[in-house]
Amino acid sequence: MNQAALEAVPERIEKVRERLRTEDCDALLLTIGPDLEYLSGYSALPLERLTMLVLPTVGDPVLVVPELEAPGFTSGEGLIEARPWTETEDPLRIIDDLLRGASSAAISDEAWAMFVLGIQERRPGLALRRASSIVAPLRRVKDPAEQEALVEVGGAADQVMEAIQTGQIPVVGRTEAVLAEKVRGALVDAGHDTVEFAIVASGPNAASPHHQPADRVVEKGEILLFDIGGRRRGYNSDTTRCVVVGRPDPEVVDAYAVLDAAHRAGIAAARVGNTCQDVDRAARSVITAAGFGDRFIHRTGHGIGLNVHEEPYIIEGNQLPLEPGFAFSVEPGIYVGGMWGMRLEDIVIVGDDQPTLCNRSSRELVSL
Amino acid sequence: MNQAALEAVPERIEKVRERLRTEDCDALLLTIGPDLEYLSGYSALPLERLTMLVLPTVGDPVLVVPELEAPGFTSGEGLIEARPWTETEDPLRIIDDLLRGASSAAISDEAWAMFVLGIQERRPGLALRRASSIVAPLRRVKDPAEQEALVEVGGAADQVMEAIQTGQIPVVGRTEAVLAEKVRGALVDAGHDTVEFAIVASGPNAASPHHQPADRVVEKGEILLFDIGGRRRGYNSDTTRCVVVGRPDPEVVDAYAVLDAAHRAGIAAARVGNTCQDVDRAARSVITAAGFGDRFIHRTGHGIGLNVHEEPYIIEGNQLPLEPGFAFSVEPGIYVGGMWGMRLEDIVIVGDDQPTLCNRSSRELVSL
Repeated sequence: MNQAALEAVPERIEKVRERLRTEDCDALLLTIGPDLEYLSGYSALPLERLTMLVLPTVGDPVLVVPELEAPGFTSGEGLIEARPWTETEDPLRIIDDLLRGASSAAISDEAWAMFVLGIQERRPGLALRRASSIVAPLRRVKDPAEQEALVEVGGAADQVMEAIQTGQIPVVGRTEAVLAEKVRGALVDAGHDTVEFAIVASGPNAASPHHQPADRVVEKGEILLFDIGGRRRGYNSDTTRCVVVGRPDPEVVDAYAVLDAAHRAGIAAARVGNTCQDVDRAARSVITAAGFGDRFIHRTGHGIGLNVHEEPYIIEGNQLPLEPGFAFSVEPGIYVGGMWGMRLEDIVIVGDDQPTLCNRSSRELVSL
Repeated sequence: MNQAALEAVPERIEKVRERLRTEDCDALLLTIGPDLEYLSGYSALPLERLTMLVLPTVGDPVLVVPELEAPGFTSGEGLIEARPWTETEDPLRIIDDLLRGASSAAISDEAWAMFVLGIQERRPGLALRRASSIVAPLRRVKDPAEQEALVEVGGAADQVMEAIQTGQIPVVGRTEAVLAEKVRGALVDAGHDTVEFAIVASGPNAASPHHQPADRVVEKGEILLFDIGGRRRGYNSDTTRCVVVGRPDPEVVDAYAVLDAAHRAGIAAARVGNTCQDVDRAARSVITAAGFGDRFIHRTGHGIGLNVHEEPYIIEGNQLPLEPGFAFSVEPGIYVGGMWGMRLEDIVIVGDDQPTLCNRSSRELVSL
């Protein structure tokens, strides 16, 4: 995690306590994941051995952690006490002890069922809710250090896109799987600590938004879609571009112009005064007006930060007003099953005036 | 997933139904993860959009899947019906409809809390238990195709270990982080589809069993620990070796001899007639007798297959009798905080007679 973000931890813990109080919730229970990282700087691989931060409204936060993971935990300034458990101890019993007196708690959205059911079994009266109800309103507003991290990691992903668009990463004659592997390597070379995904979809495969790269070799005249991202200092990149091998069909060129216009409309709507739904509608209305409405089968975007997908979701029905510091993708797509698909995606950060763009590679449908 | 394993799906579904009936459970609810892969061959990235297989004791299995993921789902022979949901539908409502009449269900151990709580909210009377109570007894006995996949992926990991032991991957003067990156590349080159972990820990860092590779450069006389693994055709490798740069301390050499003996004792105990606890005790007693008992701070091993860690767990208190087809790690370790650490790990498969070893790289403490 980046240092500036880490320094914000004490203040974040205080803000979470405030929200626990106003939401009438007695404790926060966080397993390994973005909420825990946000409030402690600690991250690790989620495994079957329970790691859980217990943050009560009143009293000190405690990290219940497997003894063999404990050496990897440093909270900085002794802010969070570690309670290591040995291999033959039952960690759920420790959690139960720490929850003594609590009648309600908020648990990580991504906590595993085995832990949720284990806690409920020992404490049947405990009212559980999702931790996002407490933490998401804080996490969705990125502070300056977080914004800087998002711009930086976005720039790293752009380097890879530019390498594709300029032919430095050759695409002709290669399979999707080989290209995905090259993209993964290039994401790391460009400064990502880890690769989160590298979707490479050619021709009709691009009509499947989350296609898994396979043995298909791209053919002349076809679209090749790249949706790539990774983490750097905790924060994620996520950007999508399409290129075409040789000359595309006029139909594809026309659709791409619609997509580009929808993308611009979405970005233009990313400003204070609008809701999340407004951004979705701004992008969608362009595509619908061009007759492709039923070909745009997903929401316009998702928030991004420590998690690739997080609040705010840019979707019909979400009337949350945009605030400065909201960071999310604008990624309209048009998909014609069996034929082709296309998507254009940038991360934007809402500002007081114009949004900040985290991605700056060419939005042209580059021909290779 | 490998083809032979995929062909076993219809029989596995029948066996699961049988277990649901004998366990008096009305339905199985599986999110993305190893249980779902075992019973459908389908795998994907777990995200906030719900994917869930509903497999009732009576009636057809249905995969509730986001519309934009649906093109990636093929069940083979129309065994499992897909029920795609659109971006503005509520998938939990579909699950609730499919559960009509059910009073109990078993849900993936790794299902996210947001889905568990969502189901409980709509159906407060539903008794939920862990899916592992139904599926693990099947999954922990590997069939011949699965055993072959484990041997094959183990051999791929061995290639990387041998490249380290013979100096093909140079270690001197490199940081842990750089070495981890080289190991990741080598795992893929050796035939892994994905890398799951690459722990590289030098000197005192090796005393932290799940150390995250960092900027430390290994020094003369120090131990360097590699714990590496990845997936090939769905199945995981996991092996640990230590090398030493230059001449090790006599103390380290002596401890390594103890570790090697403990490892051999654990493998020798991996046979029908013993329990999981017996294997743990066999390895642990060697280390305890040598005076390092409190330095071996974790269980002796874990089952492995579609998941890196799964049943059976090789730990004190687990009196499950070993059966032919059980596959697990034998990985004793000795850790002296602030000084050094060492672990030796192979995957074994219990047979009718001798166990099959999935790893065959040298167990010597190779000096580089």
